[in-house]
Amino acid sequence: MEDKQVPNIVVGRLPIYLRALSFLKADNREITSSQELGDRLGISSAQIRKDLSHFGEFGKQGTGYEIRFLENNLKEILHVDRVWDVVLVGAGDLGNALASYKGFADRGFRVAAAFDSAPHKINSQLPGGLMIQDVANLEAQVQEAGWKIGIIAVPADAAQSVANALINAGVTALLNYAPISLITPSTVRVEQIDPAVHLQHLTYYLG
Amino acid sequence: MEDKQVPNIVVGRLPIYLRALSFLKADNREITSSQELGDRLGISSAQIRKDLSHFGEFGKQGTGYEIRFLENNLKEILHVDRVWDVVLVGAGDLGNALASYKGFADRGFRVAAAFDSAPHKINSQLPGGLMIQDVANLEAQVQEAGWKIGIIAVPADAAQSVANALINAGVTALLNYAPISLITPSTVRVEQIDPAVHLQHLTYYLG
Repeated sequence: MEDKQVPNIVVGRLPIYLRALSFLKADNREITSSQELGDRLGISSAQIRKDLSHFGEFGKQGTGYEIRFLENNLKEILHVDRVWDVVLVGAGDLGNALASYKGFADRGFRVAAAFDSAPHKINSQLPGGLMIQDVANLEAQVQEAGWKIGIIAVPADAAQSVANALINAGVTALLNYAPISLITPSTVRVEQIDPAVHLQHLTYYLG
Repeated sequence: MEDKQVPNIVVGRLPIYLRALSFLKADNREITSSQELGDRLGISSAQIRKDLSHFGEFGKQGTGYEIRFLENNLKEILHVDRVWDVVLVGAGDLGNALASYKGFADRGFRVAAAFDSAPHKINSQLPGGLMIQDVANLEAQVQEAGWKIGIIAVPADAAQSVANALINAGVTALLNYAPISLITPSTVRVEQIDPAVHLQHLTYYLG
């Protein structure tokens, strides 16, 4: 049960905690601590405890967190205790990579449909078998299916019009790979995947 | 001039501020405020002022920030007032997408070399013209050139051995696209690009 007042910046760290827990679980670990999570993530243990305290009591002083318990709680808080259909727009190199991405399984997502505008791509298959559909049919199709999440994997000059079409069709959550700032209504949330941001974080530490 | 004591989490926000400033500049804007930046980024204005105060005084109460001045300072702080050579490993769909990515230009990075292990890819060209080299030559080549930054765009089961090779060759900054947790010495920094983390941030806000 989330609190509407939780800062967005705190919410953004929860998936990172969830991923760290999954990695620990894959190592057959059962218990962890805010200290261990913090060391792995470069976040202070106090910050982690404070972030989690927005949502409840998940561990005990001195004994730490039961990994499976905290993982299940975070999945519920983030609404990934279910599987979300995601609409992929753009079937170029990036779209192909996303269609075969192994990191979605068990984390709450599946690519349910893919669209492109290039005639030679339409009706061909992405890796994994999904058929590429004509972007001209995007709005009708997305609206009918009621999909809420879109991934924009088109070139920068097409990204805004794709965003508009997705939003018109009822999508309220966008993951944008194009290196532009999308203009969207305040009812729509946008996350951007931007390798330069991550590289710049790294170069801070390089001489 | 950075302060070694600045929390990593604060450092990680600087590239996002820098990107927001670049977008504002592209709109011919000259002045902004922590309030405007915060509204755009979903970060409180107090947090932005606090983050920036680690590095100096960049604005005045009541008049805000001169965009170009703050941008130049952030570029210096993040060491992207120069261009860094980046080594790309993996010439699959993702590697192809990265080789033609338009978001590196003017942000401090260029892909200087690309490696793959697939015989049919070696000596062929990536989009943009870069020749794909044999990963068997990676260590010698990276060491000789003195490259410090690597992008890992190989399948999950190859990512750790690629990381090891890059680190052996002197790379200390890794951007990992594979959905695994790399094991690295404490002298190496790793950033991970993980679309599921961003999607989970979005689904928090979906019912």
